[in-house]
Amino acid sequence: MADLSFIPDLPSGPLDCYRSTASFDWKQLKLSLEGDLDLLKLKYKIWKTLEKDLLFAPPSVTPSVEEQKRITQLQLKKINNYKFMTYEMFKSSYSKRTRAIMTINEAVQSVNPSVSVKMAIGIYLFSNALLSLGTERHYKFFEATIWNREILASFALTEVAHGSDARLMCTTASYDPKSREFVVHTPDFKAAKCWVGNLGRTCTHTLLFAQLITPDGTNHGLHGFVVPVRDPATLETYPGLVVGDMGEKIDGTNQGLHGFVVPVRDPATLETYPGLVVGDMGEKIGVNGIDNGRQLCGRSLARWLITPDGTNHGLHGFVVPVRDPATLETYPGLVVGDMGEKIGVNGIDNGFIMFNQYRIPRENLLNRTADVTEDGVYESSFSEPSKMLGAALENLSAGRIGIMQESCHTISSAVAIAIRYAATRRQFGAKDDEIPLLEYELHSAAVSEIHAMVSCSKPLLTWTTLDAVQQCREACGGHGYLKCANLGDLRCNHEPTVTYEGDNNVLSQQAGNWLLRQYEQAAGGVDSPLGTVTFLTRCQDILADKFSCERTEQLKDVKFIISTYQWLLCWLLKETHQQYESEVSKGQSKFEAKSKCQVYRWKTLSRVYAEYLAIIFCSESVSQEDTGLRPVLNKLLVMYGLWSLDQHLVELYQGGFASGDSLALLLRAAILEMCAQLKPEVVSVVDALAPTDFVLNSVLGKSDGNLYQNLQKALFGGAGTMERASWWREVVNSAPSKL
Amino acid sequence: MADLSFIPDLPSGPLDCYRSTASFDWKQLKLSLEGDLDLLKLKYKIWKTLEKDLLFAPPSVTPSVEEQKRITQLQLKKINNYKFMTYEMFKSSYSKRTRAIMTINEAVQSVNPSVSVKMAIGIYLFSNALLSLGTERHYKFFEATIWNREILASFALTEVAHGSDARLMCTTASYDPKSREFVVHTPDFKAAKCWVGNLGRTCTHTLLFAQLITPDGTNHGLHGFVVPVRDPATLETYPGLVVGDMGEKIDGTNQGLHGFVVPVRDPATLETYPGLVVGDMGEKIGVNGIDNGRQLCGRSLARWLITPDGTNHGLHGFVVPVRDPATLETYPGLVVGDMGEKIGVNGIDNGFIMFNQYRIPRENLLNRTADVTEDGVYESSFSEPSKMLGAALENLSAGRIGIMQESCHTISSAVAIAIRYAATRRQFGAKDDEIPLLEYELHSAAVSEIHAMVSCSKPLLTWTTLDAVQQCREACGGHGYLKCANLGDLRCNHEPTVTYEGDNNVLSQQAGNWLLRQYEQAAGGVDSPLGTVTFLTRCQDILADKFSCERTEQLKDVKFIISTYQWLLCWLLKETHQQYESEVSKGQSKFEAKSKCQVYRWKTLSRVYAEYLAIIFCSESVSQEDTGLRPVLNKLLVMYGLWSLDQHLVELYQGGFASGDSLALLLRAAILEMCAQLKPEVVSVVDALAPTDFVLNSVLGKSDGNLYQNLQKALFGGAGTMERASWWREVVNSAPSKL
Repeated sequence: MADLSFIPDLPSGPLDCYRSTASFDWKQLKLSLEGDLDLLKLKYKIWKTLEKDLLFAPPSVTPSVEEQKRITQLQLKKINNYKFMTYEMFKSSYSKRTRAIMTINEAVQSVNPSVSVKMAIGIYLFSNALLSLGTERHYKFFEATIWNREILASFALTEVAHGSDARLMCTTASYDPKSREFVVHTPDFKAAKCWVGNLGRTCTHTLLFAQLITPDGTNHGLHGFVVPVRDPATLETYPGLVVGDMGEKIDGTNQGLHGFVVPVRDPATLETYPGLVVGDMGEKIGVNGIDNGRQLCGRSLARWLITPDGTNHGLHGFVVPVRDPATLETYPGLVVGDMGEKIGVNGIDNGFIMFNQYRIPRENLLNRTADVTEDGVYESSFSEPSKMLGAALENLSAGRIGIMQESCHTISSAVAIAIRYAATRRQFGAKDDEIPLLEYELHSAAVSEIHAMVSCSKPLLTWTTLDAVQQCREACGGHGYLKCANLGDLRCNHEPTVTYEGDNNVLSQQAGNWLLRQYEQAAGGVDSPLGTVTFLTRCQDILADKFSCERTEQLKDVKFIISTYQWLLCWLLKETHQQYESEVSKGQSKFEAKSKCQVYRWKTLSRVYAEYLAIIFCSESVSQEDTGLRPVLNKLLVMYGLWSLDQHLVELYQGGFASGDSLALLLRAAILEMCAQLKPEVVSVVDALAPTDFVLNSVLGKSDGNLYQNLQKALFGGAGTMERASWWREVVNSAPSKL
Repeated sequence: MADLSFIPDLPSGPLDCYRSTASFDWKQLKLSLEGDLDLLKLKYKIWKTLEKDLLFAPPSVTPSVEEQKRITQLQLKKINNYKFMTYEMFKSSYSKRTRAIMTINEAVQSVNPSVSVKMAIGIYLFSNALLSLGTERHYKFFEATIWNREILASFALTEVAHGSDARLMCTTASYDPKSREFVVHTPDFKAAKCWVGNLGRTCTHTLLFAQLITPDGTNHGLHGFVVPVRDPATLETYPGLVVGDMGEKIDGTNQGLHGFVVPVRDPATLETYPGLVVGDMGEKIGVNGIDNGRQLCGRSLARWLITPDGTNHGLHGFVVPVRDPATLETYPGLVVGDMGEKIGVNGIDNGFIMFNQYRIPRENLLNRTADVTEDGVYESSFSEPSKMLGAALENLSAGRIGIMQESCHTISSAVAIAIRYAATRRQFGAKDDEIPLLEYELHSAAVSEIHAMVSCSKPLLTWTTLDAVQQCREACGGHGYLKCANLGDLRCNHEPTVTYEGDNNVLSQQAGNWLLRQYEQAAGGVDSPLGTVTFLTRCQDILADKFSCERTEQLKDVKFIISTYQWLLCWLLKETHQQYESEVSKGQSKFEAKSKCQVYRWKTLSRVYAEYLAIIFCSESVSQEDTGLRPVLNKLLVMYGLWSLDQHLVELYQGGFASGDSLALLLRAAILEMCAQLKPEVVSVVDALAPTDFVLNSVLGKSDGNLYQNLQKALFGGAGTMERASWWREVVNSAPSKL
């Protein structure tokens, strides 16, 4: 047995009675779930260190979004100084190094999700991209990022009007052989790079993806144009223009020389009209009540014209300096701004950026797959280098796996809060809570199977977590709605994961595509190095199975669950394939045919495959477990399997696997029996899932179970909570009657 | 045709192409959905008035929670001054007056949900309760509230450790015949009244529900006790005590006279230990850096002892003065505080209160069902007056109906944002959005059927809205996560509705109970004055029905949908009844038996009944519609019915209504066909559902469809959005390399 004394014991209290009924030691379960003693130690070391550091103390009221950004950046700086990633870890095997990075990420994420996002994007994603897309000449950036922490980077891919479809991006980088520079340009606001994490306030460099254009087509160079700027009837600036000076003030006498009246702000709301960039001159020596805002016709009148015959070599990566690292001032030629307030993770400064003929050195092109010579000739040993890039981007699974790990933390924390609350609030009442317990092992093997696995698992896990956190909030009733219960923050910070790093719907479709390919070629053997779909070769036999159980015991068996999932996958694949073929044969385009299948099949297919993966890998782990944990792990696995199957009863009936009421009756009876069996274990399971109280940061879920004392402390201790409102004079009636 | 020119026309723009395909006039649909021309005019009048009033302008950044409370209170004062409720409306019929109040509530809620909650609790709920529970002597409170707006009230029912189960409440009001007062007391923190809206900062009176105790049992009066206050070993105050002075400072020399050292705050976090009320003395003339906090052994040493033989007459209502209306200072003898930050609706000052032998005049008892004479004798003409009160509280359906109306607004707004975004972002893409469109008519008739109807409909509507807002957020991708998209606020402010005014799970169970009673007595005729369950008398025939359709056209018929719902209800009732009886016959208690049925049946039963109600009442309205709107309304109704049925396929298969794949196949094909039929209508449907742009307050959902211009304005116009962070000095490295 491993020495787990580094995990602090839990305080004795009202939860003791529930803990005494558990069949296992919660610390051993925690180790089993983590899977590695050193990583678990690392996690606790990080939690203990941050708990002692007052910079990481939870604020008593939510700071302004600006203050959240400041604290997040300061916390990142502090974490850099703590050097949790030792040189020894960095020099170990790829797999060990990756798991160490992921553990640090998870430990930091659980304390402040914004910090981990900041670190993941600004340091790890950037330096990995330099290694995979760049060459020796970019080592200086790598060194300054990962070792010296002088660079904090961002990742500029998405544009305002274009999601992640790389072919539609409009930002261009045109090579100028005279100066040996790339000229980066944003044609209009729709092409502004946006949602760029770290860009709003803090990054010094961005990894830009832009269409690379060389001068071997016709480049007409600088031209003067008469460009319509404002509507003569209303003097409103036309949409799509950024008019105004973007740099320092040159000469105060410029003010007011234009000789016409320009409407600047809507008098009703004082909002600046679209197309204008208007700023206050800042603090002056005196008369600070007057705002000397100014407007100049800026540089946008001069344009590079690039005709359609200029060769566009597609999307490439560039390192672009954005801010002076010494002063954090934005360089001239850029319009950089913060995206403003979001629903959650407000510690991250998501930004947007527009380039106005902005120049960067030729060497800043990430040139692993293709380069541009000093003279402007495009050279590559790959036939389609921009497709290589696309493929490389698509397979950046690390971010998605990180999100899954974070989701595991979020769901664990939410469930810990809800279960401890339920246990202290009252005896277990009307309904039991299911604990979908998932464990993912990281494997390195065939890329396409892994891509499919990750693409279906990220949606499953992030959606399941979103639902579970919401159910936990509702299970905690009104008190769950208190900010200090932490369920609101868990939810709002988790929320964007269903969209970013690959929208869940898009990823589901990709996983479905891979599965269909395997199904179609199953007769000739599947391409499944990890063996997750080899059963498809037995598809006909599997589909002949019928449900024939008569007792719940037969259902509460991992073998039953796995074979039912195999039936489901075979049936869904057969049906999806048939429907798709039938739509195509009716003359529908492939896109339309897919759309029709998507609503009811593709998404289900992908979800069922993800659940199947969770069950088979978890089953393998459980069977290898040789401590006393196997019984409880097996119960949790069966519970999860049955609960998941319950979501697919329609398909099981529709496909004829079962008819009549026995399947639904037995399945739901089995689930209720599993609830009863897990009831004595559940508080200790939650102890194993929960982080420390400091990290959990919930007045309802503290491990001591002293619900009402903790609630009282929180309510009485709130800043100014019992004070008369400072604004009382504004709201009382004058001379009210005494009643 | 009604003159609808008071509804502003929509701006022409990119959405025109979608609007031109609609088969109907969106303003007529808006009127049809609202159901009353005068009410629609009232709503627009309110929206236009508030749009012009700068106090209601949306803030550019989220204000602090304290500032949100201040603005909300100022807005309430302003709305009071606008007098939207005219004397004429007030004097009209009950039904007209109620609908006018609900319309004002909905219009205000859509601009700031906190204001409408404040108004509903503080003015309407309180004055209604005075009318239904009080007598002539409480008219002064009524007048001061509804006419003079001098009183802002709150509603103190829930206690920290007890939800809405009135029997378990611990706050007592003991009558003291000597002074002719009630002495209100809170035995411990678990009995503190909490979540009391308006109590935290602003209300002047609270409507308190407390156990009434008369002195005709033994009242031992005032006694001195030796009460353990602090642990001698650690000098920590025992939990459950409120120690400290609650009023004005009497004499500065009291400080430090106790002669022992009391630990006051945790040195690590500076949080006050539980059980202490410690406050700063406030501003002094000089030396303001020193905080003269003080602690005195307070009044809690003196206690009324009420022995078990003192008669407890159960829960009664009292009007309790909380703050001086002239100064908003809390009266001595009370501990009143704000609940602190919540997930949403932070404009509402939810509070908690504890009473320390607090005295109120005898007359403040709401005495419609029972009174206490001056000498302390309890008198009532009702046999169980406290049960009367409970029944009266349970049937306060108005609040729940208000929530449903607000949910309709929330779901309409979210769908408007998502559809307009989808239409401008790209052509309708891979999937269609369903529009669950619900309309509820208000009827006044048999109380128990209405209670059942409201109890199942509130959960259906609030849960559906929560899911729909989330799906709208996801459908808007990353941009939906922007604060200025407004989907986050719509969601967070809607979120508590699933818990308050009757937790959804509890309400569902109550509706299920009523349905089961009807089922059990169906042979002898059902008690259904509104006719919603009269079909139960044909239960046997209905259950003999089998699914036999062969074409989607047969499913796209309201008659098919209604008859399938009747089958579902009959089957669910039969199964629930059987399962419940079987559990009871196995020796389970009624509570346990209900719990077992609850997980899979009761909740479904209640939901299916609610959907059935929506469908039959909507169908009735549609059939009465004689304008050109009937086709589109019918399409929406069929779409909703099919979409809802799709959620219950398992039950339809399990119960043998269908077997094999034809039901699922045809149902889902019919839904896809309805999507296609509704596609040309959907933008105009949304125009009819949406409030004005000012109220919708979403950068993604503006009616002009100029998505990118609006987004640009929002991003560029954010306060300080392009400034260098003011805290840049704290986060840059000293002397970084130039890269």
